Amino acid sequence: GAPAAKKQRVEQEPKLTYANRAALPGTHPLARRLLEIMEKKETNLCFSADVTLSKELLRLAESLGPEICILKIHCEILEDFTQEFSQKLKHVAKKHNFLIFEDRKFSDIGNAVKQQYEGGFYRISSWSNIVSAHAVPGPGVLEGLSVVAKPLGHGGLLIAQMSSQGSLATGEYTKAVVKMAEDHQDFVFGFICSSKITEKPEFIHLTPNVQIQTGGDKLGQQYRTPEEVINKGSDVIIVGRGILEASDKLKTAELYRKSGWEAYKQKVGL
Amino acid sequence: GAPAAKKQRVEQEPKLTYANRAALPGTHPLARRLLEIMEKKETNLCFSADVTLSKELLRLAESLGPEICILKIHCEILEDFTQEFSQKLKHVAKKHNFLIFEDRKFSDIGNAVKQQYEGGFYRISSWSNIVSAHAVPGPGVLEGLSVVAKPLGHGGLLIAQMSSQGSLATGEYTKAVVKMAEDHQDFVFGFICSSKITEKPEFIHLTPNVQIQTGGDKLGQQYRTPEEVINKGSDVIIVGRGILEASDKLKTAELYRKSGWEAYKQKVGL
Repeated sequence: GAPAAKKQRVEQEPKLTYANRAALPGTHPLARRLLEIMEKKETNLCFSADVTLSKELLRLAESLGPEICILKIHCEILEDFTQEFSQKLKHVAKKHNFLIFEDRKFSDIGNAVKQQYEGGFYRISSWSNIVSAHAVPGPGVLEGLSVVAKPLGHGGLLIAQMSSQGSLATGEYTKAVVKMAEDHQDFVFGFICSSKITEKPEFIHLTPNVQIQTGGDKLGQQYRTPEEVINKGSDVIIVGRGILEASDKLKTAELYRKSGWEAYKQKVGL
Repeated sequence: GAPAAKKQRVEQEPKLTYANRAALPGTHPLARRLLEIMEKKETNLCFSADVTLSKELLRLAESLGPEICILKIHCEILEDFTQEFSQKLKHVAKKHNFLIFEDRKFSDIGNAVKQQYEGGFYRISSWSNIVSAHAVPGPGVLEGLSVVAKPLGHGGLLIAQMSSQGSLATGEYTKAVVKMAEDHQDFVFGFICSSKITEKPEFIHLTPNVQIQTGGDKLGQQYRTPEEVINKGSDVIIVGRGILEASDKLKTAELYRKSGWEAYKQKVGL
């Protein structure tokens, strides 16, 4: 019941490892797989590979694959996406044991997102383990996506907060997102957020725009370091430009992986 | 100044015709074009053509073109989109004088939406006059889209309210959307909404999920009639299933056009 759960949370939750959380009965199967990958590969690094050529993306996935738990992409940014490419990407993901995350930010009514998810040119559901969604349309967006995701073993992340300046995903909005996720745990296994927004250890917190060199870009984007993000209660650091703009990408990815992993170990007391 | 503007609003705004609003100095060039089309063709009907085959979409555009001011599509729902198709669609749009609206609901940071808008397989900016966006990422989303839209004469609509059950686009969120639109009138010329949300006559209100037979679907969707929508202060009725599921689509589109136009004429006292 509730009191026991509360007691357990207070005593144990701060020390729960990724492995402990993978073993919880309420953890979504895909979240379990993710947590097990993280534990095994000692990485909480999600690499955001916003490149325009599929060949470059495959090369990056092949090279950085051993360092990451998730590869986040925007298929729409690729100039030359093909289903052959997506099959190759799946192959690399299997080889290096990471999950593919199409950050589509679905945000339409249930019937539309269902078709956007499985149909069209990209057929996202045929190759992406994880997709993101906005809660703004209400629960219908999750019900539409869930119809497609469930038989395939896929899962989703809700955008609970955004790092861009002036985002409306704050306060009551963020609370409503958490509530919506709790009501749809058969599909939603975590959040895109800038800080810890729920104490429930079944949910994974992923934080984008992490960069060791802090600052912002010209289109309202703000950055934070791996330590800050993990210490704020997040589980997965999402790094894009910090790696993409480095001259030695592999060495830089390794640096982020170690930095994120050290912060995690300190936090859980390992 | 402010008091004069207020006085003008109180006295004249309820009687402003589409033509009057097209002539206002602050009206976005694309909104002006839309209002002129509406006036000329006597239609405030936007047809939402969520079909899966490009051939069918072209046939519908050719057939219903004379009845509509906007054709709203989801290119991602098409199984066989090609750039050849998009060029054909542009040709039909020119012939029958309507605007193309890709209802993409962009909802990412500025740098991502910029690339999603102009790049990838769909190259949306090369064929769509209008795109939609969510305000949730903050103004960066509009700045990213605007960079692409401005040189092409395109414009955007912000999602201010959604008809789906449990939508978070309500209250303070909707107010923030209106504010964001007012701050970016070089790109945003209107709203997707269920009721009138601003008194500024430069902005166009478009309301989706209009159906003469009222009710809902299984994925949280709710419907309203053309009269209700126009009387609530909206300018454009968006009709999808109401036409798509009719046995005689052209006759049904004509019915919606007349119904919407009569409601408009009554409202402005013509």
